[in-house]
Amino acid sequence: MRIVLAQINTSMGAIEINRARILDAYAEAARMGADLVVFPEMAVNGYPPRDLLEHPSFIREGVESLHAIAAQMTGPAAILGFVRPNDGAGKPLFNSAALIDGGRVASIHDKTLLPTYDVFDEARHFEPAAEVRLAEWRGMKLAITICEDFWSTALYRPHPLYHRDPVEELGRLGPDLMININASPYSVGKRKLKAKMYEDAVRKWSAPLVVVNQVGGDDNLIFDGWSNVWAPNGGVVAQAAGFREELLAWDWHQNDGHNGVPADPGEEIENVYEALKLGIADYVYKCGFRRVLIGLSGGIDSALTAALAADALGPENVVGVLMPSRFSSDHSLTDAEALAKNLGIERHIVEIEPIVQTFLKQLEPLFAGTKFGLAEENLQARARGMVLMSLSNKFGWLVLSTGNKSELAVGYCTLYGDMTGGLAVLGDVLKTRVWELSRWINRDSERIPWSSIKKAPSAELRENQFDSDSLPPYDQLDPIIAAYVEDYASAEEIVAQGFDEKMVRKVLQMIDRAEYKRQQAAICLKISTKAFGSGRRMPVARGQSAPAMIK
Amino acid sequence: MRIVLAQINTSMGAIEINRARILDAYAEAARMGADLVVFPEMAVNGYPPRDLLEHPSFIREGVESLHAIAAQMTGPAAILGFVRPNDGAGKPLFNSAALIDGGRVASIHDKTLLPTYDVFDEARHFEPAAEVRLAEWRGMKLAITICEDFWSTALYRPHPLYHRDPVEELGRLGPDLMININASPYSVGKRKLKAKMYEDAVRKWSAPLVVVNQVGGDDNLIFDGWSNVWAPNGGVVAQAAGFREELLAWDWHQNDGHNGVPADPGEEIENVYEALKLGIADYVYKCGFRRVLIGLSGGIDSALTAALAADALGPENVVGVLMPSRFSSDHSLTDAEALAKNLGIERHIVEIEPIVQTFLKQLEPLFAGTKFGLAEENLQARARGMVLMSLSNKFGWLVLSTGNKSELAVGYCTLYGDMTGGLAVLGDVLKTRVWELSRWINRDSERIPWSSIKKAPSAELRENQFDSDSLPPYDQLDPIIAAYVEDYASAEEIVAQGFDEKMVRKVLQMIDRAEYKRQQAAICLKISTKAFGSGRRMPVARGQSAPAMIK
Repeated sequence: MRIVLAQINTSMGAIEINRARILDAYAEAARMGADLVVFPEMAVNGYPPRDLLEHPSFIREGVESLHAIAAQMTGPAAILGFVRPNDGAGKPLFNSAALIDGGRVASIHDKTLLPTYDVFDEARHFEPAAEVRLAEWRGMKLAITICEDFWSTALYRPHPLYHRDPVEELGRLGPDLMININASPYSVGKRKLKAKMYEDAVRKWSAPLVVVNQVGGDDNLIFDGWSNVWAPNGGVVAQAAGFREELLAWDWHQNDGHNGVPADPGEEIENVYEALKLGIADYVYKCGFRRVLIGLSGGIDSALTAALAADALGPENVVGVLMPSRFSSDHSLTDAEALAKNLGIERHIVEIEPIVQTFLKQLEPLFAGTKFGLAEENLQARARGMVLMSLSNKFGWLVLSTGNKSELAVGYCTLYGDMTGGLAVLGDVLKTRVWELSRWINRDSERIPWSSIKKAPSAELRENQFDSDSLPPYDQLDPIIAAYVEDYASAEEIVAQGFDEKMVRKVLQMIDRAEYKRQQAAICLKISTKAFGSGRRMPVARGQSAPAMIK
Repeated sequence: MRIVLAQINTSMGAIEINRARILDAYAEAARMGADLVVFPEMAVNGYPPRDLLEHPSFIREGVESLHAIAAQMTGPAAILGFVRPNDGAGKPLFNSAALIDGGRVASIHDKTLLPTYDVFDEARHFEPAAEVRLAEWRGMKLAITICEDFWSTALYRPHPLYHRDPVEELGRLGPDLMININASPYSVGKRKLKAKMYEDAVRKWSAPLVVVNQVGGDDNLIFDGWSNVWAPNGGVVAQAAGFREELLAWDWHQNDGHNGVPADPGEEIENVYEALKLGIADYVYKCGFRRVLIGLSGGIDSALTAALAADALGPENVVGVLMPSRFSSDHSLTDAEALAKNLGIERHIVEIEPIVQTFLKQLEPLFAGTKFGLAEENLQARARGMVLMSLSNKFGWLVLSTGNKSELAVGYCTLYGDMTGGLAVLGDVLKTRVWELSRWINRDSERIPWSSIKKAPSAELRENQFDSDSLPPYDQLDPIIAAYVEDYASAEEIVAQGFDEKMVRKVLQMIDRAEYKRQQAAICLKISTKAFGSGRRMPVARGQSAPAMIK
């Protein structure tokens, strides 16, 4: 009995594209001698379709596509995720898996646990399964579950998050094989969590488990694949790669012990690198672009962004533009030039000083008598943003923005300036991790100039400006940001971790006040447990009172 | 028995501000001779707190605030909305109402139906009530419900959206009085829907109903108040104003028939005007600003935005800036000047032509040999955006962006150009409604120059450019946008309504492709059933395939 795990890269809402992809993978799996081909969650529709799910025509086309696909699956059986309407009370849809055999849908299994936290909104659209039951297939009993269905035992707060446990419900029915289809995005540390969860389940129910996850970038989310098969001893017997498509065959011998080896989640820094690379490539391709444009400042953030883009798209598809001003230091230019040379990317220079001066001249009647300040600093960042967008409009290159998570957290960035761009590659990467990643990229040879990595960070928007003028050192700032944003710690709790109280209160206030900038930020590639963007929804206008009308 | 409906304006997440507001209203209600004071949903925390609900310290401070408030409520009894932790399985919080009597919490009633659609995310945070029961108070039985709890009978798709109906459950227990506390945002047509729903409920259960809604703008949402009391005959016996704070007293005589009169939802165009005014004022005040800045083009959108802002904040708090280019027509300047004069607002002129020319000069080596196109058009819009942001940074004025919903829908707007600003006042107002609203504002005298209202719409970014060069006429475009965005109609269904198929397909494609612009748009004040922003969550990178690795 050969089972093929079809770890494919679908596109959100692209039903025709996904159908072709599914059928191509199916044909190849058939050539590999598969008896059963297992596809990811919602493969027909592309996960996450978000509010496309509100369009009845999108649901209808998805169901039609499922049946068209099934009709062509006359070889091996298949398990395929799709969305179907709920014809009863409650939310209008089910998130479902179809077992397809002999060219038709043999049974349908709905998702019970609907993640509704962080980036997930499933309770917005879906009704939980009314019932769970085993699938009968060629005399065997399969426990088919969908993604979150497996997480009941893992999500405690400290009480269980869910009232039901579909794995337990199915486990008690004695399945021969468990199958879990996923659209589970990558974040640092998640593979370890998943490994523990799967390990516990196979041991508890003494049945092997096939886990299939989609792969690919979809807006802010990066699906890492890493599909695998778990033996009842808690070890892995088949393991697909992370961050690339793969068809993984596993031969199931029902009475074989299948002793597996401990799961290897990989080096986290390498995973982050691969995740960002895939996130860039898929955002660019799925938006219909081929080339990207990056403003190169000579600093580490733009250097790392360019290196990742060159690795993701090929250096021939990356254009760098240097935009010096009067405050740019000599090393800014030389470091940016060295970077472009190391990476082998096209580079241009556009001086912004005349632009800034013309702006100031036009604003002179209004600015007369005021001192050089934030307005003048931001003008430079925005002139650069405008140059980037002009080149983007002229040549059809997608602008990648280069700010990191630390800056975006405390608002050390300029709206419509350095925040310009379609994708914020490092928007979920704290500055300390930017350094770590850059060193890792340079592990064999200097690709990012060491000078960019080692110099003191500066926005270079005024004379002798350094980040440390306005911000705590990053080795203090980053853990405070992580504690507040990722772990929801209070000021008191962060101080109790050993940080200076005044510093903590200042940083937390900066984070709260920068919400209005993040409201208009580019999509950030998510690599942490809590990224800015769709997974973190904060009010903007708060902390001040409306004028009272009563009293 | 005097019941006071405390229609107050809270702030999201501002626990101290809300406490003061609640206690001020309570003191005034006591002076009015209240026996019971009813406050809105989640008044302690401010609705919607969004993901502030993830911070355990925010929940703790809210519960402490509730008890501090209760301790001071030693006069009339009160019903007050707050958030409390769930100490059992499921989501970590309850959305609750406290009945406070004699300075302490007498009973707590949790919300059963948790809206999780459009702008609402309650299932993200809250567990539904485990049980509903009547509150006993001074020998009477009160049916206390929270907002959505009342909507079970109104939300059909065509099957019921909810499995439970807390009003029915409580109605069967024979309440003397029903009380529904709300944080229910305004949208066109909603008052009529609510009136029907309340009317049906009082008739069915033969008990009067007290409805209290919060008032005020909170980011994109505008809460309209319009609290009222419904008699068992289906009529209204007490009605608070819309769009302003009010303490409304109602004397309940238990054995009196209380024949009310039919509800009057008001003129919708006036409601839209009041909603936008309140939305502007509260966003400005709650963000800590006092003055706003608007780019005046001489066109109708910026004129309407300025008129609304002048009415919301006083003309002394509105600054207009005219930014002509070589493509600006004579009437652009004269109309903008006339507007500023009519409204009595400060106005400045900044010529952008030298800025645009300097940009083009700097870009010349790269642009050489290319034709005037989108890049050059957008440069002008972005130069204006930069001027606005420079003035904002220099003087602390909040920029209001002026684009309408029709433009934002089809992407007829420039990122970092005319989209610049903290609040998109007309982002949910279709162009045809922009005209309607402008005429309504001019009903007594010319405030918006009639010339701005009557001339053909133009972006004036190239010679003799008109909206009609790129877009269908607005009387065709707007209904297509409304059908697709607000009603989720398919292309076929819209064509069946009598629109040209080619036009429909083009418009729908434009809407889909502009998603990346809306991703970075300013917050839009919501006045329709479906506004762009937090209530509409669409994928950006779709429709294209990632490179295939299999086959």
